[in-house]
Amino acid sequence: MSAATRSPAATTKGRRRPLGLGQATITGGFWAPRQTRNGLDAIPSGQDQLEKAGNLQNLRLAAGIGEGEAIGPVFADSDVYKWLEAAAWEYGRTPDEDLLKRIRDLTAVVAAAQREDGYLDSVVQLRYGDEGRYQQLVWSHEHYCAGHLIQAAVAQVRCTGDTALLEVATKLADHLVATFGDGKTVDVDGHPVIEMALVELYRETGTAAYLDLAKWFVEARGHGIIENHGHSPTYFSDRVPVREATTVEGHSVRAVYLAAGATDVALETDDAELLDALKRQFDHMWATKTYVTGGLGARWEGEAFGDEYELPADRAYAETCAAIGGIQWAWRMLLATGEASYADAIERMLYNGFLAGVSLAGTEYFYVNPLQVRGAAHPDNGRSPALGRRGWFDCACCPPNIMRTLASLDGYLATATDDAIQIHQYATGVIGDLQVETAYPWDGTVRITAPEPTVVELRIPGWAEGATVNGDPVAAGGYARVEAAEIELYLPLTPRVVGADPRVDAVRGCVALERGPLVYAVEQADNEADVDDLHLLPEAPTVEESELLDGVTVLKGRGRRGEGHRPGWPFVVDAQDSLGDEVEVTAVPYYAWANREIGAMRVWLPRG
Amino acid sequence: MSAATRSPAATTKGRRRPLGLGQATITGGFWAPRQTRNGLDAIPSGQDQLEKAGNLQNLRLAAGIGEGEAIGPVFADSDVYKWLEAAAWEYGRTPDEDLLKRIRDLTAVVAAAQREDGYLDSVVQLRYGDEGRYQQLVWSHEHYCAGHLIQAAVAQVRCTGDTALLEVATKLADHLVATFGDGKTVDVDGHPVIEMALVELYRETGTAAYLDLAKWFVEARGHGIIENHGHSPTYFSDRVPVREATTVEGHSVRAVYLAAGATDVALETDDAELLDALKRQFDHMWATKTYVTGGLGARWEGEAFGDEYELPADRAYAETCAAIGGIQWAWRMLLATGEASYADAIERMLYNGFLAGVSLAGTEYFYVNPLQVRGAAHPDNGRSPALGRRGWFDCACCPPNIMRTLASLDGYLATATDDAIQIHQYATGVIGDLQVETAYPWDGTVRITAPEPTVVELRIPGWAEGATVNGDPVAAGGYARVEAAEIELYLPLTPRVVGADPRVDAVRGCVALERGPLVYAVEQADNEADVDDLHLLPEAPTVEESELLDGVTVLKGRGRRGEGHRPGWPFVVDAQDSLGDEVEVTAVPYYAWANREIGAMRVWLPRG
Repeated sequence: MSAATRSPAATTKGRRRPLGLGQATITGGFWAPRQTRNGLDAIPSGQDQLEKAGNLQNLRLAAGIGEGEAIGPVFADSDVYKWLEAAAWEYGRTPDEDLLKRIRDLTAVVAAAQREDGYLDSVVQLRYGDEGRYQQLVWSHEHYCAGHLIQAAVAQVRCTGDTALLEVATKLADHLVATFGDGKTVDVDGHPVIEMALVELYRETGTAAYLDLAKWFVEARGHGIIENHGHSPTYFSDRVPVREATTVEGHSVRAVYLAAGATDVALETDDAELLDALKRQFDHMWATKTYVTGGLGARWEGEAFGDEYELPADRAYAETCAAIGGIQWAWRMLLATGEASYADAIERMLYNGFLAGVSLAGTEYFYVNPLQVRGAAHPDNGRSPALGRRGWFDCACCPPNIMRTLASLDGYLATATDDAIQIHQYATGVIGDLQVETAYPWDGTVRITAPEPTVVELRIPGWAEGATVNGDPVAAGGYARVEAAEIELYLPLTPRVVGADPRVDAVRGCVALERGPLVYAVEQADNEADVDDLHLLPEAPTVEESELLDGVTVLKGRGRRGEGHRPGWPFVVDAQDSLGDEVEVTAVPYYAWANREIGAMRVWLPRG
Repeated sequence: MSAATRSPAATTKGRRRPLGLGQATITGGFWAPRQTRNGLDAIPSGQDQLEKAGNLQNLRLAAGIGEGEAIGPVFADSDVYKWLEAAAWEYGRTPDEDLLKRIRDLTAVVAAAQREDGYLDSVVQLRYGDEGRYQQLVWSHEHYCAGHLIQAAVAQVRCTGDTALLEVATKLADHLVATFGDGKTVDVDGHPVIEMALVELYRETGTAAYLDLAKWFVEARGHGIIENHGHSPTYFSDRVPVREATTVEGHSVRAVYLAAGATDVALETDDAELLDALKRQFDHMWATKTYVTGGLGARWEGEAFGDEYELPADRAYAETCAAIGGIQWAWRMLLATGEASYADAIERMLYNGFLAGVSLAGTEYFYVNPLQVRGAAHPDNGRSPALGRRGWFDCACCPPNIMRTLASLDGYLATATDDAIQIHQYATGVIGDLQVETAYPWDGTVRITAPEPTVVELRIPGWAEGATVNGDPVAAGGYARVEAAEIELYLPLTPRVVGADPRVDAVRGCVALERGPLVYAVEQADNEADVDDLHLLPEAPTVEESELLDGVTVLKGRGRRGEGHRPGWPFVVDAQDSLGDEVEVTAVPYYAWANREIGAMRVWLPRG
């Protein structure tokens, strides 16, 4: 078994040390059944989907098993590696011999597919041969696939002790080190992720060349490489050097993966300037380009971040992978800085923008996570939210990304410093010697017991006005430090009616409901009034437990119906919201929407 | 010279007969200098651009002149044909020997490029040979190119009397008739336009087979042809048969071209059911999927119509070609029904969504016409409005489409019935025996004189409350019928502060300014306050003549500054528009925006 912490981003250089699987363990409450479904249903069915879609066949063909042509997108291998990573974390969580056999069998195929010199990309090998390597790195995703392979290998060695995939990964990384850099091939992949991966491989192996190459890939961006290939650089986060950038732009998943990798580089190289640049970018993203759900990426076109404050509810792209990348970035910022705001951000993304990406059953997925769907919405392509969640996608990046996140979630709960444990996310489980009991996010009480008085730093979310620790008031936004053997944290889950900065044009005059870490949504299934045209009175909603949607707490507010459809030209002098009857409005957690018949849904409702 | 009316859609079967070039002529006022610049600057420079981009070279190569490969998109020929159509109308407007020579020289190349059996598509011929014909009609645009060729040929014969291009067009149309239809190849082009074109060719030649094929192409849609090729049908207006559809959907230019062609078919075949279906679709588009500017198509993704009421200001696509297609469709609906609302719609599209597509100089173009651009907007691709108008595009459909529309604009002014002339658009010029004098849209007075008392039906726009004819009040919305030799129409150009139906989520709580047919925009160049964050007080603005932007009437209102950028998380309890100083707000006609430095621009401003 590897010596490193069994978690993603197992750094020892930050202000906080992560506690990995085994050191922090979710055992019950909100997340445990989701992790169980992920392990028992999603991961096995994911392997079937990879078989059906041809991803596994590609690797077998590259390994010389059978004959045929590569199937699917050029980045097909990456989905397999994300699955392998998920399976490794899942094995780390709940060891299972059958799962280990699946991991080992698939690892053997991957190893056999690798070329003598370490190169590995089954689709490129099958379609273009050795000549075709790195010919169009801007689109070929060869480093992207390598990055996911490396991440899977690191998870595998950390959780199973097997070094088989790590050997493949180091051989591939050595090949990359030999091939890319100053005086070698000067090029970058159109899709980042290799940066995070190489830093993790460095953490696992101690080989400095991997960190150096990660740093080189980060620094190479923003100097015209992609533009020189004839492509517009914005989409690829290649317009401005990372250390000069003031915001995130372009393809949202690419942007946050790059930022997360750059944060890793800053962490391991003690690069305060780079870290400051990344803080600035995160802050700007959070203030101007993040949905209330924590969703990232406003535009379908280019799957991209929009301009500042461009956050349409209906056409939000908010790719599930972008929320995952956002969590990875925020986690690294948290380790680097110890600032609670990053843990607040993780919580918002986790319970909303990320979790909406998977069905209650755990085996259907959203690629795109809008904050509004109209009743008459018509699906016009395979990613259309009006289709509901789907079992798989032609571009299947999101499903195995969700799997690896749920399987490694224990690693995001807590960190340590020399003198304290920090608890960032509240879940029933065990953290070191601490027993944590809570029905969070339905109930705001968290009970922590230790065999002896222990110094614990408890995150008090920014929204938690009125929080107490052992009865004493503590400030919202930051950590409450306490030394005790029995701790009772109370986070008041008073529903909140939030509005938006007036620059967020898309939701002017609207309000949204939140409670604790959850953003709520109003679905047609729960409401008699037409949700397309429903206004919410801005009074505090009441809280009701329910059996709905596997048991969620619903919010009940008062609203007024709209006037209904008015025919004719809609832009007239004295156009008014003329409102009808007062009605009850029922809201359910956003993450749970679209688990029944797809109908109108709104996170933001016009103020009645 | 052809006997048919020298106008687009020269039908004799509608409730109104078009008056073509020569029967209705713009001689001064608002449009004449725009037409002059179109003829003297845009059309010649357009030919240069087509040379530079390789479109002309493709046709020469297909004609056996020189050797090489096809350049550019598969629909490259269509831009040449739209240019030829524009040149023909321009020759019809102002005969010029040099222009005629250019037309004839280029026509000779096109004729030489045509295959023996009538097939013609230079890119397909050069790239795929005879074997490659119609192999992927969903994307190959072969009928689309044919349609534009036919339209050019009809314009050419109507305006120059030359039959050279008509011979190419009939040979191509005969080839299509021989190739497509029941018992032949059952397929449709992914991009409509052939339907309108074949009906026009039928009108020109009397050959019923062309009308029959147009009808067949219209009826073939919506029965799974495109889905059977493995493509999602919505984008291609192929989900529902035209006569069953209740709205427009998918790619907006494709959708309105198809609808315009279907209206032509309904007109010529007396198909009342089809016409009713098209009325229903137009009404639904106008009530729920049209911007206040008359812009059509909400989505960048798929260049598509959005759902009902999905009309974001910032990410409006509103392709210039879609406004042109909308005008073509509305014109055919007007001919078919005689209803003034279609002429109102043409006016709105013409003065706003269409005209914004071209610079004041006449030689730079917008592909995309948003209703808001933020100050910090960063161009991320070649169509980005933040780049300003551009001289040409890789996909250059819009520029020559604007050219043909301006050159044939005279044809949209007026129609006739047996007992009256209808004037739909007001411009200084000559309509039959009528002299029209007006400074419209800057001034609302239109003086019409005739040698003897004449029955004239004057469109009174829906917005023109308080209109008078010879001093007598007339109702807004419809036609005022008058028999006189001297007519003075007065349309009050009182500025209007309009709001939006509450279902248009994107502009909730906002107002826009209009005056007469013009929608106004607030540009940073005219305003000291930050336009990103400027609120408009809903009082009536004042009207001022100015020398700005070639002389426009500006509107001056009162507004209040916003609070400016607030850092941090933007979605909070009690978020409020907290407003600053009162400031003057200057608005200019939307069509004229982005003729100075590109800065923030808003059509819709939050109500202060």
